[in-house]
Amino acid sequence: MNRPITFLTDYGLEDEFVGVCHAVMARIAPESRVIDLSHGLPRHDVRSAALILRRTLPFCEPGVHLAVVDPGVGGMRRPVALRTAEEDRILVGPDNGLLSLAAQRFGGATEMVDLSRSPHRLQPVSATFHGRDIFAPVAAALAAGAPLAAAGDPLDAGELVTLEMPLAHQESVGELHAHAIAFDRYGNVTLDVEHDELTGAGLRLGAPVTINGVPAVYASTFSDVDEGELLVYQDPYRTLSLAVNRGSARDRLALRTDDLVTVRAL
Amino acid sequence: MNRPITFLTDYGLEDEFVGVCHAVMARIAPESRVIDLSHGLPRHDVRSAALILRRTLPFCEPGVHLAVVDPGVGGMRRPVALRTAEEDRILVGPDNGLLSLAAQRFGGATEMVDLSRSPHRLQPVSATFHGRDIFAPVAAALAAGAPLAAAGDPLDAGELVTLEMPLAHQESVGELHAHAIAFDRYGNVTLDVEHDELTGAGLRLGAPVTINGVPAVYASTFSDVDEGELLVYQDPYRTLSLAVNRGSARDRLALRTDDLVTVRAL
Amino acid sequence: MNRPITFLTDYGLEDEFVGVCHAVMARIAPESRVIDLSHGLPRHDVRSAALILRRTLPFCEPGVHLAVVDPGVGGMRRPVALRTAEEDRILVGPDNGLLSLAAQRFGGATEMVDLSRSPHRLQPVSATFHGRDIFAPVAAALAAGAPLAAAGDPLDAGELVTLEMPLAHQESVGELHAHAIAFDRYGNVTLDVEHDELTGAGLRLGAPVTINGVPAVYASTFSDVDEGELLVYQDPYRTLSLAVNRGSARDRLALRTDDLVTVRAL
Repeated sequence: MNRPITFLTDYGLEDEFVGVCHAVMARIAPESRVIDLSHGLPRHDVRSAALILRRTLPFCEPGVHLAVVDPGVGGMRRPVALRTAEEDRILVGPDNGLLSLAAQRFGGATEMVDLSRSPHRLQPVSATFHGRDIFAPVAAALAAGAPLAAAGDPLDAGELVTLEMPLAHQESVGELHAHAIAFDRYGNVTLDVEHDELTGAGLRLGAPVTINGVPAVYASTFSDVDEGELLVYQDPYRTLSLAVNRGSARDRLALRTDDLVTVRAL
Repeated sequence: MNRPITFLTDYGLEDEFVGVCHAVMARIAPESRVIDLSHGLPRHDVRSAALILRRTLPFCEPGVHLAVVDPGVGGMRRPVALRTAEEDRILVGPDNGLLSLAAQRFGGATEMVDLSRSPHRLQPVSATFHGRDIFAPVAAALAAGAPLAAAGDPLDAGELVTLEMPLAHQESVGELHAHAIAFDRYGNVTLDVEHDELTGAGLRLGAPVTINGVPAVYASTFSDVDEGELLVYQDPYRTLSLAVNRGSARDRLALRTDDLVTVRAL
Repeated sequence: MNRPITFLTDYGLEDEFVGVCHAVMARIAPESRVIDLSHGLPRHDVRSAALILRRTLPFCEPGVHLAVVDPGVGGMRRPVALRTAEEDRILVGPDNGLLSLAAQRFGGATEMVDLSRSPHRLQPVSATFHGRDIFAPVAAALAAGAPLAAAGDPLDAGELVTLEMPLAHQESVGELHAHAIAFDRYGNVTLDVEHDELTGAGLRLGAPVTINGVPAVYASTFSDVDEGELLVYQDPYRTLSLAVNRGSARDRLALRTDDLVTVRAL
């Protein structure tokens, strides 16, 4: 039984890092399709990668989900593989929080192994490229049907490292205190607010609002507002985001990760 | 019968937009090969994308050709799929002119459907990511063998939105008025002139010319001229282009899209 | 028998160059998996590409290895395909040194053909895009089982163009004169020193050293030193490299290709 593999890293595509991982996987699991979710994430930004993994996996066939954003490579953090309670997904990567949001989304981890001495690893394991030497070959072996329990040493699934996340809250009717938790290359800004929370806060589609004091519209899509105007909208993952039609909301509001974003009805 | 899919967007590879579309297609058409033509096109540049689609498709096996450059996503423009008169190619994308040049190249559209309510779309359809929710799943379903007529509501194929393009003309023997219609990352400049028109204009290979007054050579390839020199040449798609050997013709001539380019024999 | 293809270029991913080569290969060898090693190499940098090909191929299943970094396209350099003495690998690309380091790694070329008039080429062959018109279709035909001897005109395998490389040497016990031979996007610097040579030079893991006079540590991995500190380490290809933890060794030492790098024990 061959399962598909999804592959997410911060390696970039300038060098051969991604390509050589593909080559390693193709040798071990020649029948498995490998889907590159992205390799252009901000370097060492574990949380952005964790958020992307959480929101993209529902669109991916259950399989092996390999993610490597690993600033502590070669240090104390553990390389792990785990199984999710729902949908029988296998997540593979460093245990630095990267896998935790996706695992939670699918009911948490029910089984987890430490890959440091995995029989599937390429030896000798280099100190700085565990993507090639541990994560890719283990992911491929699992995709090709190897059992998870035999891929490493058993761990307590409850030990998975988790991430601290800011928490949005409704301050009063018509006022919401949220945070900028992620950015895309267009300067769109993801907030830590589910769409239902916003409507619960008394906002209505088409209504004027302010965002950190800047006038904006609560709209459906970019073209609902004029070029250069700010909007707040339900993004494709059903959470709230900020955008500027044909511009950058990140720049307009000078936002950085975890900055407070106050949405106020007028 | 599974057909291959080609995939062209302006999504870039920094985010997960391209990857999640791949994931959606792989679930629906696991047997179809997906070929990324490019995802690095200038953002929102419908015409550049239309030109690339037109010139690359002759090198692609007839199949499903998915293209998404969609500044009006969520607005009034229609999502469509169409069949070409020649070679039975299926084009899928927003009806904003993007598909029109490729359709013309293969004899025009003979059948077209509106995908707004396609049974293949992912529901709920987001307002801002039709690539994932409409175009990718429809393209995959068509590649996996679903009939075009059942993929959406019927449209008059003659209604396909077309693009205005500038028109080169021969001013006199040895003088040609053309336009800069596209650029690549090296700064090479595509003109709206078929190679045969240039030779018809009385120019001969190896001859000195001026381009907007700048001395150049009508040459076969970059290395026919010294480093830093300007040349006009037949590009790989048999149209005329400008280049600077190991430099940028775009910068040298300070050209922007649709600027007039006068090629004059000396 | 279908063999996998690896694909390495300096084409970048902004334009359709890589995509159209994929399309050409998919038509000719629909069963062959194509693995992109990288397309983000520095433009026209034949030697960096040759080094990457040499170090990545041991991780790739023996197959057809296509590489195109070709500043002299359309000029006098020959397009070639060759077979390596060991592992029966087929290398395809321009004969400008690009293939030579990888060929040497696998025992040298035992058979080589000139592809200028290959029966597998796409006609008419353009003057500036041999990747699409010669290299990709030939690589695909070979991957699909076409014999090498029939892919072009026979050449003396000893005629393969080679590259000049600088040579590291041990100046005295505890002092090594090496060179910066390649850089990755993080600013890590590859030296022309095998790891065993360094230990032979009397250096011990954890020891303080200077690199061009700058204090550094001979360490295993980035996180062995504080953020911003310089280290020399065994890279994933078992050669020596320089890095700055979460920074750029290239910038710190202001290094360019082939610059002298003196590693001295304290």
